[in-house]
Amino acid sequence: MSPEPGPGTRLDPWFGSYAKRTDGLKVSETRALFAVANRPEVVSLAGGMPFLDALPMDLIAKITSELINTEGTVALQYGSGQGHPLMREKITEVMAEEFITAHPDDVVVTTGSQQALDLVTRVFVDPGDVILAESPSYVGALSVFKSYEAWIEHVAMDADGLVPAALEETIARLKAEGRRIKFLYTIPCYHNPAGVTLTVPRRAEVLEICRREGILVVEDNPYGLLGFDGQVTPAIRSLDADGVIYLGSFSKTMAPGYRTGWALAPHAVREKLVLASEATILCPSQASQLSIAAYLDNFDWRGQIDVYRGVYRERCQTMLAALAEHMPECDWTVPEGGFYTWVTVPEGINTKTMLPRATTALVAYVSGVAFYADGQGGRQMRLSFCYPTPDRIREGVRRLAGVLSKEMELVNLFGPHTEGLAPDVQNPAPDIA
Amino acid sequence: MSPEPGPGTRLDPWFGSYAKRTDGLKVSETRALFAVANRPEVVSLAGGMPFLDALPMDLIAKITSELINTEGTVALQYGSGQGHPLMREKITEVMAEEFITAHPDDVVVTTGSQQALDLVTRVFVDPGDVILAESPSYVGALSVFKSYEAWIEHVAMDADGLVPAALEETIARLKAEGRRIKFLYTIPCYHNPAGVTLTVPRRAEVLEICRREGILVVEDNPYGLLGFDGQVTPAIRSLDADGVIYLGSFSKTMAPGYRTGWALAPHAVREKLVLASEATILCPSQASQLSIAAYLDNFDWRGQIDVYRGVYRERCQTMLAALAEHMPECDWTVPEGGFYTWVTVPEGINTKTMLPRATTALVAYVSGVAFYADGQGGRQMRLSFCYPTPDRIREGVRRLAGVLSKEMELVNLFGPHTEGLAPDVQNPAPDIA
Repeated sequence: MSPEPGPGTRLDPWFGSYAKRTDGLKVSETRALFAVANRPEVVSLAGGMPFLDALPMDLIAKITSELINTEGTVALQYGSGQGHPLMREKITEVMAEEFITAHPDDVVVTTGSQQALDLVTRVFVDPGDVILAESPSYVGALSVFKSYEAWIEHVAMDADGLVPAALEETIARLKAEGRRIKFLYTIPCYHNPAGVTLTVPRRAEVLEICRREGILVVEDNPYGLLGFDGQVTPAIRSLDADGVIYLGSFSKTMAPGYRTGWALAPHAVREKLVLASEATILCPSQASQLSIAAYLDNFDWRGQIDVYRGVYRERCQTMLAALAEHMPECDWTVPEGGFYTWVTVPEGINTKTMLPRATTALVAYVSGVAFYADGQGGRQMRLSFCYPTPDRIREGVRRLAGVLSKEMELVNLFGPHTEGLAPDVQNPAPDIA
Repeated sequence: MSPEPGPGTRLDPWFGSYAKRTDGLKVSETRALFAVANRPEVVSLAGGMPFLDALPMDLIAKITSELINTEGTVALQYGSGQGHPLMREKITEVMAEEFITAHPDDVVVTTGSQQALDLVTRVFVDPGDVILAESPSYVGALSVFKSYEAWIEHVAMDADGLVPAALEETIARLKAEGRRIKFLYTIPCYHNPAGVTLTVPRRAEVLEICRREGILVVEDNPYGLLGFDGQVTPAIRSLDADGVIYLGSFSKTMAPGYRTGWALAPHAVREKLVLASEATILCPSQASQLSIAAYLDNFDWRGQIDVYRGVYRERCQTMLAALAEHMPECDWTVPEGGFYTWVTVPEGINTKTMLPRATTALVAYVSGVAFYADGQGGRQMRLSFCYPTPDRIREGVRRLAGVLSKEMELVNLFGPHTEGLAPDVQNPAPDIA
């Protein structure tokens, strides 16, 4: 490394000055889609936006107005770096729905659970450290991990979630190679993007393996209360307080526009997270926290989650029926909750290559490539059923089937797609001796 | 470094697993004070909280309620990682008050300007890189810089702000040592904590030095519109678009509870900041952004800033008069705006050592030690006049004078304080060959 910042270029006078970690910042596969998805003529099966028309806006407007009128000098002021005590108290009530017993002192309120993920990575991960993640895993988590120059090792999943035997094998191999594993990142419920759920017996198995191997579990559970049948699977954190950092969010159960999520962490870790959060944002928004707290106090929020469940259940059923009707040549997962199904297309098709043609046909999805650090996923795509209405979902799948069918003709004529299949997305494993 | 995470302890099972950068996370000198400052019997001259009683809460309540009623599904939804276009447009209008010409495309909305500071450091600074900062500098900036393992080099200031000759000398010395300087961090207006303002001629000089030496300028300007006489000094950014990243905030001109600030950056840098922000928080709060935009649209926000100016001018005058009356043995800076004055106590007194006795006497301040990376500041303290009423300010200074007077008796009897004076706060300079 040169001791002098390098020279700039005509397009970027600071080109030579960036930190090494900045190399890991790439435009995400999903980013460009937001612009497309916002065009009304496109059916977007791409985004993970909750369906906010189901919210009682008049009531939220009223309680927010009351909040500012009666407590404005508190709600609009700086607050505690850890989050407002009232918000942390309410968060423990929400987590109790997932059978978690926790003290408000161990909760850190964050700017969406994305910031919680950032803080955990910042506090634990040195460049070259290994993070275990499901195969596939959440694109936003992969972005954070790469921005801290972590090495992401995918662990196999099946219809029952993360495979314990694969986890054991991966840990053993990495330890034999002398690698430093910092944590397992897992989305146990209604996985993003895979749509599957880690079964109860496997939760205990995964936890036991990680405990034995001294590996921290980071449980990311934004969809945990959104099971279609109203049943809630006990969180991994409900089984172990010392070995698990739990990440939660109001983005899916209430609304994402407040950017309010949290981490529940073992006590000593919690203190590090607060310090890191203070360095990053000073404190989370008091206006957001007190608005959410007032909503939870003044409204049947459990009933509202039931409304959301019903909306998403119907949309999921619609999507699966449309897939069965229009795309029988594909495979897909059958979610029991959440926002997504994970579709595998016939051999020869590459979903990344096909995407521009899909958007031309006015339907959008996310290519599976986005959800791997190692270039896999070319035969998969994530379809979201959370935001479009059932009619639009049917229309979207119909359009997608048309694109796929033309794509298969092309493949039959000219041979399979080859782009995007090379495992070149992640930097090579560093030599850490 | 061991390839295996180290063992935990009884108090922290993950003690051996933290990243190296986590060593740089220390409880800030000011943190413990927030708890004290909130006790009503204490006069806090410590915090930098704006005086929100001056805000039109009924109007803010009304426009927020209208926003949620008419645009709730947008205001409570996810948004763009860069920030809402309307907010970015409004931000360029606010910056125009400081003679900045900018395009909304080059604005990145952040969770307070603290997050902007975090993003800039994340994007530019590798461990061991040098950041130049005024002597003293903002405690929250020093926290961020340390959390990225930067080396902070203080540059002298006087009553006219940063001293250009000292800047040149410091750069020359560091370059001769082969150090890698990433940027100059400066608070040009109504400095936190020093209370001084960089003069117009010096702005051009500082910029010319940095341009010549290829050093980026990070201009942090939360107080720029809060000059007591209503005059606005042109921002450094108004003189150069390519060499300056400007950081702004609504925390002081409107309210901090929305956690909304921004960075204005050269185009290529802006793109890196957006990617880093997406990895950290996905997107800033749409609810906060649209609430602020509606406030700016529906209210005479320039008039509101005038109200704030009047409040802070009176409080500053009250504080300076009280200092002259009760603490003539001290020196202090004479601010022309902002929130703070910087007080130097007589030789032999250490403000960090004195602080517990001050809080016992029901008055709080921040010891100057917090504002240096190298252990200086024992003879200084920051006094804030933004939040307490004039009567409380008078009472606070009177109490402080009593504490100081007793402290001087003790020093005369037992000799000077010696704690806290060793330059041991920062890690030693790394050997970067």
